[in-house]
Amino acid sequence: MTPKRIHNFNAGPAALPQVVLEEIQENFLDFKGSGMSITEVSHRSVWFDDVINDAIARVKRLLKLDDRYHVLFMQGGASLQFCLIPMNFLNDGRTADYVNTGTWSTKAIKEAQIQGKNIEVVASSEDRNFAYIPKEIPFNSGATFAHITTNNTIKGTQWAELPDTGGVPLIADMSSDIFSRPFDASRFGLFYAGAQKNMGPAGVCMAVVRDDMLELVPDNLPTMLKYTTHSAKNSMFNTPPCFAIYTVQLVTKWLEETIGGLDKMAAINQQKSDLLYNAIDQSDFYRGTADGDSRSQMNVTFRLPSEELEQQFVAEAVKNDLGGLKGHRSVGGCRASIYNPTPLSGVEALVDFMKTFEKQNG
Amino acid sequence: MTPKRIHNFNAGPAALPQVVLEEIQENFLDFKGSGMSITEVSHRSVWFDDVINDAIARVKRLLKLDDRYHVLFMQGGASLQFCLIPMNFLNDGRTADYVNTGTWSTKAIKEAQIQGKNIEVVASSEDRNFAYIPKEIPFNSGATFAHITTNNTIKGTQWAELPDTGGVPLIADMSSDIFSRPFDASRFGLFYAGAQKNMGPAGVCMAVVRDDMLELVPDNLPTMLKYTTHSAKNSMFNTPPCFAIYTVQLVTKWLEETIGGLDKMAAINQQKSDLLYNAIDQSDFYRGTADGDSRSQMNVTFRLPSEELEQQFVAEAVKNDLGGLKGHRSVGGCRASIYNPTPLSGVEALVDFMKTFEKQNG
Repeated sequence: MTPKRIHNFNAGPAALPQVVLEEIQENFLDFKGSGMSITEVSHRSVWFDDVINDAIARVKRLLKLDDRYHVLFMQGGASLQFCLIPMNFLNDGRTADYVNTGTWSTKAIKEAQIQGKNIEVVASSEDRNFAYIPKEIPFNSGATFAHITTNNTIKGTQWAELPDTGGVPLIADMSSDIFSRPFDASRFGLFYAGAQKNMGPAGVCMAVVRDDMLELVPDNLPTMLKYTTHSAKNSMFNTPPCFAIYTVQLVTKWLEETIGGLDKMAAINQQKSDLLYNAIDQSDFYRGTADGDSRSQMNVTFRLPSEELEQQFVAEAVKNDLGGLKGHRSVGGCRASIYNPTPLSGVEALVDFMKTFEKQNG
Repeated sequence: MTPKRIHNFNAGPAALPQVVLEEIQENFLDFKGSGMSITEVSHRSVWFDDVINDAIARVKRLLKLDDRYHVLFMQGGASLQFCLIPMNFLNDGRTADYVNTGTWSTKAIKEAQIQGKNIEVVASSEDRNFAYIPKEIPFNSGATFAHITTNNTIKGTQWAELPDTGGVPLIADMSSDIFSRPFDASRFGLFYAGAQKNMGPAGVCMAVVRDDMLELVPDNLPTMLKYTTHSAKNSMFNTPPCFAIYTVQLVTKWLEETIGGLDKMAAINQQKSDLLYNAIDQSDFYRGTADGDSRSQMNVTFRLPSEELEQQFVAEAVKNDLGGLKGHRSVGGCRASIYNPTPLSGVEALVDFMKTFEKQNG
């Protein structure tokens, strides 16, 4: 029997490529002739070595990383990274700049402040409810790093291009737009992404860290909280989240072999978001919440004329097999998350539904 | 086509009940009619709420926990718990006792020492390479907790019964024997278990914490490193490892509904380990490494007359579909991990192979 599948616009955990899910399912009781599930093989086996090393190799190729960069698969999500970054890199009087572009940036800033670290919020878009990405930011040349959130899942904004930090290494939370387009990785001291939006299931967070940042890590931190622990042991100081890493391997394989790399992925994402934003802009019924030049290609946030209509919209969408369109509980409204795995056909189905709904309720 | 399945004696990640794997596989593209995979549903959805709340309810019933106990599903494995326990509970001059019974106890002790906490190792079996569990331990009545490792995966030892601490709350790493037998949970301030041995796949760690311990947690710790953060949000302060928690739900369901609870599970485990230890004891060819009264029901460690024979044993076992019998790289020898999901028939197959191998090589 063909399983029921809906168009899934969840913000995360989010849709995965169906071919990836099918490959997992097919091999779930016997992984590569081992006679064991991927959930049952030892992380110290050739089977899992092949999985994690292939995943790392694919990440390096997709992002064109040079040998200074270490690809780590960690646990605890971006939320743990918020704690680890100041703990590892802001000692001995070091300072950092943070840009506040929404809920997740705010949390990253808070975790540095809890630890009493010396950071400066050099720009913020809080004055207009984070509807835009700040420009002409006065970064401090003496900062150890400058932290940004490249895509703001809740507010529906995204940096169109990386800011000029005057040579200060960037650190970025890329949880919701990693692998959605090419970027110049060499500008980063560290970037990280919870997998559950663009690259896998919940339960693994990728952190890509550069050699020079590792030199800043103090010896006396708890072992699991040091980036150096995980880089020295190829992410296997302790048992890693094997199933989640396996899924990341399959998603990066899909990006390379089915999609054809990040240039191709970016073109598809452009097409998808253009289609949806055009539908919003051509209507007086739907209204985008982010400034035009700050719009996210991943999370398209919009309002309807009333909250009642928004509730009705979300409910009727579900009846049409379009799921996950409710905005984040902290901001309300509607949101369509259209990460890499969402096919163009899914966005087309959503736009068709939006037009029908407007005709019936506009 | 029926998938190939071997007898899996891995120490962790380890075997899972085949019915659990089959249920995951069958529903992998469409979870409960959602039209989404369990890896794609939102953690803020009714689908996942049902999963995590059912898993918690089953844990509480299986372990007979009263209302003071909070069941948390965290990330970072037992290794992160080693850091969190002293960080959360040993402030304001508080002290703790640790018992050292092997590799994992040693690591737990090290993480308290790295943080400069005031702890005392009140007993150790290091003098005889951790081949036994210490007795008559001089616990300090003023300690905030006494930490033990209930089962020592690498050394093949297990506490036959919980030590008398004179009323001091126990904290235990139960990664390798949780749910293998009933125990008196009311003696614990906290117990924790990485899932990948007895309760699920790698990627989630269960921590069960009592109310009075939570009162010791300082406000100013990084948010993700406080037990209070996770207890206040039902393990969903941030996105939890949904797939791993789902698997734990199915394993606890199997324990309740197929096995019939922990008394039944303990009887089966007794039968399995008796069968294997009897085979070892009746032979001059195989030799157990742990003292008789300290033997583990979960990890049966043994030696052969030479390292060459051990290598041959492990290699020939694999050819007979008996996998994972190599001892931990730090101690050598052989080890059969026979956690809850290993059926009696698996142990019978192993014992048959051991007898044949002895005849041919003894």
